[in-house]
Formats: sequence, structure tokens, C-alpha cells
Amino acid sequence: MTVKAYGSLAGDKPLEKLDITRRAPGAHDVQIDILYCGICHSDLHQARAEWAGTLFPCVPGHEIVGRVSAVGGHVTSHNVGDLVGVGCMVDSCRECSECHDGLENYCDGMIGTYNFPTSDEPGHTLGGYSQQIVVREEYVLKIRHKEEELAAVAPLLCAGITTYSPLRHWKVGPGMKVGIVGIGGLGHMGIKLASAMGAHVVAFTTSESKREEAKALGADEVILSKSQDEMASVAGKLDFILNTVAAPHDLDAYLNLLKRDGTMSLVGAPSEPHPSPGVFNLIFKRRSIAGSMIGGIPETQEMLDFCAEHGITSDIEMIRAEDIETAYARMLKGDVKYRFVMDIATI
Amino acid sequence: MTVKAYGSLAGDKPLEKLDITRRAPGAHDVQIDILYCGICHSDLHQARAEWAGTLFPCVPGHEIVGRVSAVGGHVTSHNVGDLVGVGCMVDSCRECSECHDGLENYCDGMIGTYNFPTSDEPGHTLGGYSQQIVVREEYVLKIRHKEEELAAVAPLLCAGITTYSPLRHWKVGPGMKVGIVGIGGLGHMGIKLASAMGAHVVAFTTSESKREEAKALGADEVILSKSQDEMASVAGKLDFILNTVAAPHDLDAYLNLLKRDGTMSLVGAPSEPHPSPGVFNLIFKRRSIAGSMIGGIPETQEMLDFCAEHGITSDIEMIRAEDIETAYARMLKGDVKYRFVMDIATI
Ligand SMILES: [Zn+2]
Ligand SMILES: [Zn+2]
Ligand SMILES: [Zn+2]
Ligand SMILES: [Zn+2]
Repeated sequence: MTVKAYGSLAGDKPLEKLDITRRAPGAHDVQIDILYCGICHSDLHQARAEWAGTLFPCVPGHEIVGRVSAVGGHVTSHNVGDLVGVGCMVDSCRECSECHDGLENYCDGMIGTYNFPTSDEPGHTLGGYSQQIVVREEYVLKIRHKEEELAAVAPLLCAGITTYSPLRHWKVGPGMKVGIVGIGGLGHMGIKLASAMGAHVVAFTTSESKREEAKALGADEVILSKSQDEMASVAGKLDFILNTVAAPHDLDAYLNLLKRDGTMSLVGAPSEPHPSPGVFNLIFKRRSIAGSMIGGIPETQEMLDFCAEHGITSDIEMIRAEDIETAYARMLKGDVKYRFVMDIATI
Repeated sequence: MTVKAYGSLAGDKPLEKLDITRRAPGAHDVQIDILYCGICHSDLHQARAEWAGTLFPCVPGHEIVGRVSAVGGHVTSHNVGDLVGVGCMVDSCRECSECHDGLENYCDGMIGTYNFPTSDEPGHTLGGYSQQIVVREEYVLKIRHKEEELAAVAPLLCAGITTYSPLRHWKVGPGMKVGIVGIGGLGHMGIKLASAMGAHVVAFTTSESKREEAKALGADEVILSKSQDEMASVAGKLDFILNTVAAPHDLDAYLNLLKRDGTMSLVGAPSEPHPSPGVFNLIFKRRSIAGSMIGGIPETQEMLDFCAEHGITSDIEMIRAEDIETAYARMLKGDVKYRFVMDIATI
């Protein structure tokens, strides 16, 4: 089946309209008519070949929501007409301990939604900037939000789970003070989620202009990270920090804010290394620096259900497919509140 | 009371014999005739003023073992004649949550055994390279080893607890594969302790010559860290790594050896930063880099009892007090198996 998509033919070429093929649904497959797809920084890095190994044509997009249009004969968990989502992966080995533990995101055989090997044409996976996708049923998520919220649900599939998973893993909840560093696509979800989990949320931003916005998102306190006085006011007081900033920055300034045994989890991967964090800051309070990457399938479903229950979606700005390059340019400047979502009907 | 000690009068002067004063024991104090004192890298850094803020005269030494020679009127936990130890601290605030949790090592008011403020002469604490020390009873540890093992017990008070505490905190035990990086004063204790805790111990060394030694200490496997093949053989297989190396080195080479959710705890603090660790290595397996610093008083007692029960002491080389400069020079070259201990009778 040939469908329309947006993708790049080389790292130095803009995205353009392409024809791609999707396999006919196999016995365990779900065919989804895509309605909206969120725009993630990873999409841009991949399409521009800023990460090694981009395969062309490159069709990005891993914040996919749509409606089931066909199912294979053995599919039991999804029905035609269901609202569903697909996130950052479309398959994994299904045999290893990570897969058995529902942590398919840490499976060495995880197949990303784009740019990963597949037996389908053209030999690598093609993502959600397209009219349709065919995915094994186990990797398709149910969406229980209201239908009119659907576009704003799309970013939950990457930005949502990327922040939800570490907040859960490090047991964020009532009685805890939690820092969220960076108020962008990831950070704004982090504020909403940590707040809904019952934590006292301290948001960190470099710009005075985001102070009121952060409060509106749910932050109990907002700290201007350039202000030494404001930073000092929370020194040693935070139980956990979710650091969403991908640009290289001084990690020590945040490590100092953690209590004894506190953890700062990084979810942004800088292209250049951060300045090396000081070992003394780790040793003196037994603090940790950790990383976290998206989440497994069961946890992604749990996150979607949690968000539906708490009325949480992403703040989005809808774009037409042909405006993707403009959206990328604005995203690079941080000029979006807080996630672009492509209306797939405009392809 | 005036007693003999070894210490430095300036960072660029060698240690020499000094007269220092010790207070008369107060109601809660224990007066200890010191028998042996282990020689720690920290001693050298402090005496040489390589760390900021060295106060002179500087009498180092925080691996102290001896015999109680007097006790204050309210002392209930120690008796004259008891074999006891004093580690890296001689007091703390005794009021904060860290102190209440038995984690006095993380108390902001912790008073180190040397170079910390005190109302005693000369206004800062003086350590164990001396004939006698007077310490509040709560900070005095009981030694249940055989008396003839006493000199080899001394290094447990710093090198022992510094490695025991993180091994316990990260729950090392049977069924776990644990890496110990560096086979020196700290590392050789890490191997013995992790092995006694029931873990499968993988020791890492830069020198082929230490391979058999590490096995003799209890390592189940020894990996030459310069060999890419040997390193690759344990990639992704370790649950926990205790990294005792203070010299700046490539942390990524070890992070890669951790399983999902594995932690590398650093107990050595380099004078220059390590090369900045890669965030991808943390993110892809939700790994952590942590720090740890000595241990609290209850855990130090637990460690001493654990070692007595399992017949664990440090491997030591005894020195006379006047040979301290030679010992420092050899320690800097790693030329000691594995800890120098000063025979205080030779002062
Ligand atoms: Zn993404
Ligand atoms: Zn797997
Ligand atoms: Zn020490
Ligand atoms: Zn305290």
C-alpha cells in the first residue's frame, strides 16, 4: 500500500512530500490511519543526519495518534475504529529479560519507530509523518482521552513517557520536593506530571519570562537558574531532579540542590559533553547522576491512562505538514509552547 | 596533657616529631592510648596542603586503634583496657536528621579527626599520628578482632568503611556481579568485603602483575582494563561497580559494563576532573554514577563486627614513625601492599 509522507532524502535537504509503502497487516498487526504526529527534537536530529547512521529516505515521527483501520486475524487487543497511539518503538526481541519485564525500551533488539532495520520496504522503519502505519499489536497503545484532545495527546507518546518513567522509577509523590530543569517540550510535561503525582514542584528556567508560565503549568516554585540567590534558596532541599536540558550545562549547580541520597536523572542527551560534574558533590551527600530513556510498553499505557484520568495533555501548536521546516527552525530557537503537532490530514 | 606526635608545620615541610596537647577526658570522653595508625592518601593531601584550608600544625591520621586508658564519669559504653578504634570523625552535631539516622558522616556539623575546628588546643583537631587521643564515647568503636590482628584492623576505620558502606547501601550480596576498580588500599578491601558478602567479584587493574594478587584477595575474575577484549567480555554484565581510583580516568569504559539500572559508585575524589562521562551511557540502560563517603558510626561498628566475624583485616606494611616521608613517597607510586600502618610505639 502506497501512502503519502513527509521526509528527507539527505541530511542537507529539506523535508518534502514522499510516497512510501506500508506492508499489508499480518496476523498480529494493527493498521492505523494516522491523525496527528508530534514533532520531537530527535526527529530533526535524525532527518538532518546530525546523529550517525541516518538511513534515507528518512520519515521521522514517533508521537503518533490515530484510528485503527484494519487488524490482522490474530489481533485480540485492538479493534477497527479504536483511537490508538504509537510511540518510540514498534517492536523488540520479545524474548529477553527486559522484554519480559515490560522494559522493551532497554531491549538490545528494540526497533525504533524510524531509522531501525525492518524487512519492510525500504529496509528501515519509517515514522509518523505519514498517513498510515502498520505496527504489531503489542506496541500499539490505547488512548482513553476524549477524542477532541487527540492532537494534544500525541506528544505524550515521547515527551510524556520520557518524563513519566523517571518520575515513577524514582518514586516521586507526596512529601517530595522535585526539581524540573528546563521548561520545553519535555519539561512542561515533567511539571504537569510531577504535580499530578502530588510532589512539590520546583521548576528551573533561564528566562524570567517563563516564571508565570511555569506556575500555570503546575510548578509550586520557579527558580531563575542564573540567580545565585534563588539557587541557594533550594540548596540541599530537593529529593529528585528531572533534568530535561540537552544543551551542555553545569550539572554541579543542580547536584548541589539535592538532599543526601538524591538523584538527578538526565533525559536530554547533549551533542557535546556537559562540563564534567564534580565528584565531591556526589561523594559528600551520596548523590547520584542517572539517565533514563522513554519507557516500556506497560508503563507507556499506564502513563496514558494516568494522563486521561488527570486530564493531562501536552500544550501544543498545530502545524500543516508543509510547514515542518519552519517548525523545526522555531523549535531550535525554543519558540514553541510547548510542542508542535502535525495535522496529518494536511499532507 | 602533652604527648608526642608526627605532623607538618607547613605544606612544603616534611613531617616531624611534635609535642601536642590533649584535653583531660570530660564526662563523656574516652582517652585512648594509640597503638597503630593507618596511613591514608587523605593524610598526605592534608599535610601537604594540597587541599585548601590545611591548618598547621597538621597531625594527620584517621585509622586509629588503641586501648582505653581513661574514661569520663558518664561513659557507659567503653571501659579502661578495651581495644577500640577511631575513624574519620570525632564528633558531629548529634541533632540533625543525618545524626539521628546514624549517618553522622553526612552531617553538616561533622568534625573530622584532623583539621576540623575544636575548642581544644590549637583550635583544630589533630589526628592519630600521636600517642594519645581523647574522643567523645559515641565516636569510639569497639574492636572484636584478636589482639594480634590489631595493626591490620587500623585501615578498616577508613579504607574498610569507605568500601563497606557503598557495598551495603547498594545491597551487594549473593547472585550479584560486582566490579571493583583499582587494587590499592581501598580496592583490596573492596574485593575482600564484596567477596565475603557473597558477590561474584570482578576486579579491574591496569597491571598484569596484580592479576594473581587480586585472585588471592578473593576476586573471582580479574580484568586488565587496558585490554579491550577483556573489558568487552563483561560488557553489560555487572550489577554494581565500586570505583576506588582517584586519578582522572575514562568513566565510560566502566559505565558500559553495567547492566540496566546498575550503579557505579565513586569513592575516590580526583584533584582534576574525570573526562566528562557520556550521557548516552547513562540513558540507554538507566545507569547511575553515584558517590559515597566513609560511613556512619553504627555502620562502622557493623563493618568492624562483620570483619571480625569473617576474619577480614587489611594487608599492611608496618612502618616506624620516622619513615613516614618514605611511606608517603612509596604510597604515591602505588608501592605498598596495601596499606602502611604506623607503629605508634616508635614515635
Ligand atoms: Zn522523541
Ligand atoms: Zn528484548
Ligand atoms: Zn582516609
Ligand atoms: Zn548532625
